[in-house]
Amino acid sequence: MTRILGIDPGSQRTGVGIIDVDATGKVTHVHHQPIKLLDAESFPLRLRLLLDGLWALIEQFSPDEVAIEQVFLSNNAMSALKLGQARGAAIAACVARDLPVSEYAAKEVKLGLVGSGGADKSQVQHMVGIMLGLQGKLQADAADALAVAITHAHVRVSANRLGVATRTAWRKSR
Amino acid sequence: MTRILGIDPGSQRTGVGIIDVDATGKVTHVHHQPIKLLDAESFPLRLRLLLDGLWALIEQFSPDEVAIEQVFLSNNAMSALKLGQARGAAIAACVARDLPVSEYAAKEVKLGLVGSGGADKSQVQHMVGIMLGLQGKLQADAADALAVAITHAHVRVSANRLGVATRTAWRKSR
Repeated sequence: MTRILGIDPGSQRTGVGIIDVDATGKVTHVHHQPIKLLDAESFPLRLRLLLDGLWALIEQFSPDEVAIEQVFLSNNAMSALKLGQARGAAIAACVARDLPVSEYAAKEVKLGLVGSGGADKSQVQHMVGIMLGLQGKLQADAADALAVAITHAHVRVSANRLGVATRTAWRKSR
Repeated sequence: MTRILGIDPGSQRTGVGIIDVDATGKVTHVHHQPIKLLDAESFPLRLRLLLDGLWALIEQFSPDEVAIEQVFLSNNAMSALKLGQARGAAIAACVARDLPVSEYAAKEVKLGLVGSGGADKSQVQHMVGIMLGLQGKLQADAADALAVAITHAHVRVSANRLGVATRTAWRKSR
C-alpha cells in the first residue's frame, strides 16, 4: 500500500487530497481539504500558512509520495508569478520532508481520468467522486488534488508492472 | 547590530548577500554567493538545492531578518511562473526558520541606492561595491542580493528613528 498526497496549488487556496493505492492499482480515499491562505497579513506569512498546513498533513497522514499539478498558464504574467510562488512553496514543503514529488500536466490528469485532455472541471469532479466512492459534490480544488493523486497512482502501478523503477515516474523539469 | 540576509531569486541561480547594520545605519559586508540550481535532475530537486543552500547559510550566519526582491515581471507567463516558484521556495525556506521576510520592488532598491528607479545593473553593482568597500566587480545577482539587504537596512533604521515598530517594514502582498 502506498499513500499519495495530491496537491492543487493556488495562491488563495491550495487543494489537498490523500489516497491509498494497492499493488493492483485500487485507490481508496483517505482525506481531502483546502488550505486557505488569504487570512495571512503578508505574502510571506501566507506561504507560512501553506508550509504549516502541508507539514501538519504530512505529520498526520504520513504520505509516501507527492503528486502536484503543473499549473494552468494564463497569459497574465502576474497570475503566473503568484501561482508559481504558491507552487514553489508547496514543492519546497514536501522536499523538505524528503518526499519524492512528481509533476503532471492538467491535460495528462484529465486524459487519464476522463479519457479526454479537454475534459471540463465538472467531469473531473464527477469521475473522482465515482472512482473514490464519495457521496456529494466535491469542491473543484479538492477534486483536482485527488485527481492528480489518482493519476500518480496509475502511473506508479503501470511502472511497477513494466518492471521499471518507480523513480521513472519523476518528471524532468520542462 | 542586525544581520540581514538579502535574496535575489532566480530559477537557475539565486543570489544571496549578507550584511550587518548598526543603529546608525552603517552597513558592513559579511558574505555573498550564488546558490546554483541547474545541477538538480528534476525541478522539485532544484528547489531542494535552494532550500538546503539557504538553510545552510541561515545556520552558518544566523541572520535576524530577510529582504527579498520583487521579481521583474516580463510579459512571458512561463518565465514569471519559473521565477515565482524559486521565489516562493526561497520565502518558504526563510519563514520555515521563523525569519521575518520583507519584500522590495526592484525600483525601490535602485531609487534608494543610486537615486534613480531606472538605474541600470552596472550602476547598482558599482554603488553596492562602494557602500560595502568591496574590491573588484561583483556578479549581478550577488550585487542585487546585497542591494536589497542594504535597502532593508536603511528602511529599518529610518523606521527606528521615527519610533515606529520594525514590523512596519513588512510589505503587504500586492
